[in-house]
Amino acid sequence: MRLRGRKGIRESLEKQPELVVLEPKSLKGKWSEIFGNNNPVHVELGMGKGQFISKMSKKNPDINFIGVDMYDELLRRASEKARHIHFGEEGEGKEKHIRNLKLALFNIEQIEDVFDEGEIERIYLNFSDPWPKKRHARRRLPHKGFLNKYRRILNNRGEIHQKSDSLSLFEFSLNSFADEGMRLRNISLNLHAEGPHPDHVMTEYESKFHDKGMNIYRTEVLIGSVVLHEHEQALQEKKQS
Amino acid sequence: MRLRGRKGIRESLEKQPELVVLEPKSLKGKWSEIFGNNNPVHVELGMGKGQFISKMSKKNPDINFIGVDMYDELLRRASEKARHIHFGEEGEGKEKHIRNLKLALFNIEQIEDVFDEGEIERIYLNFSDPWPKKRHARRRLPHKGFLNKYRRILNNRGEIHQKSDSLSLFEFSLNSFADEGMRLRNISLNLHAEGPHPDHVMTEYESKFHDKGMNIYRTEVLIGSVVLHEHEQALQEKKQS
Repeated sequence: MRLRGRKGIRESLEKQPELVVLEPKSLKGKWSEIFGNNNPVHVELGMGKGQFISKMSKKNPDINFIGVDMYDELLRRASEKARHIHFGEEGEGKEKHIRNLKLALFNIEQIEDVFDEGEIERIYLNFSDPWPKKRHARRRLPHKGFLNKYRRILNNRGEIHQKSDSLSLFEFSLNSFADEGMRLRNISLNLHAEGPHPDHVMTEYESKFHDKGMNIYRTEVLIGSVVLHEHEQALQEKKQS
Repeated sequence: MRLRGRKGIRESLEKQPELVVLEPKSLKGKWSEIFGNNNPVHVELGMGKGQFISKMSKKNPDINFIGVDMYDELLRRASEKARHIHFGEEGEGKEKHIRNLKLALFNIEQIEDVFDEGEIERIYLNFSDPWPKKRHARRRLPHKGFLNKYRRILNNRGEIHQKSDSLSLFEFSLNSFADEGMRLRNISLNLHAEGPHPDHVMTEYESKFHDKGMNIYRTEVLIGSVVLHEHEQALQEKKQS
């Protein structure tokens, strides 16, 4: 039964090659070509059921989005969500019309086999697994091993945007960013303190946590030389005014 | 009555010139002379009733401590606490034997009139007033206006150590440090998660908050060139091992 189930999932994913990328390594260095334009590429690592990446792609047609997960079942659900968010009830079969979104199946460990140096502009880490045991620290997505990979594939406007409900993961992340000498901006220890921000797209998890009144932590990490320079300029101007 | 009360406080402070410094501006550039040695000087800004600074000075005889507050009543209470912590019940009149602690009366706004460039090595900000209203942001002790003053009076091993129970102040602080390009280390969003640290000296506030199970936030900020360099070295070695 299980095998047939998985086979079914794989078959459904294979039927929508315009949206779902099952062999992303073959596209390394070619993502602009695939999207058919030179718009910036934003990648969500661990998209889960895909609400965030689908809403973001609908809201920002001039940015190319890639949602990543390693489970084909999640890709299937995210593909349904994408159609639904973009086209509502009549989304069936319309995946080919979602031009600025791809859902890619791969293990984030291998991210450098999927993206070339400087090929992407932003990484979203939303509610990543906190891996609370110390011996699993390397698996946490803001671990320095991953940060060094991210640094290589991000371009000169590169940023990482992180959200989490986990105090322990967020604390680990802040230290990891700081120890890597990365510049932080807009750190929030209670993101929705003043009510949900109108421009802010929530993940499935986030909506639930928010409804329960739990704290959401967030930070932006500046990686690229251009964005670091711009931030520095903005702070100088603020200081002088 | 109030005047007589205050006069009494002032008189009691004037009787202990070895411990209490009522005119600290006259000592700018001369603190080593006053302490009679070249040990590093650690300053707590806003010492309140003085438990932290008294315990720290007892625990670390080779560091000179200065507790600062702008209210003479708090200085009086801190001077009692200091005698009690150093000598117990028989502390009366023994303030002249506490060689590595001074309690100084001044407004932190004027800190550059009290300390010369590079004259101190560490600043402690413990449970500072969060000044929650936006229009009072400038009064928060980690506001960039203060940070620039601290930067000037700290030496090349200079650090700021902050603790707070206030989520909003700590969030503000992290952003303020980050925007000033300051390097952070050992960020903690729940300091006593694994029980109180044996080496850790608690303030009066902190003991209360801890007993109530509230989160304590903490960070270290690296300012001096030497300490920044050492931190960088330590991280490199950790990476290689």
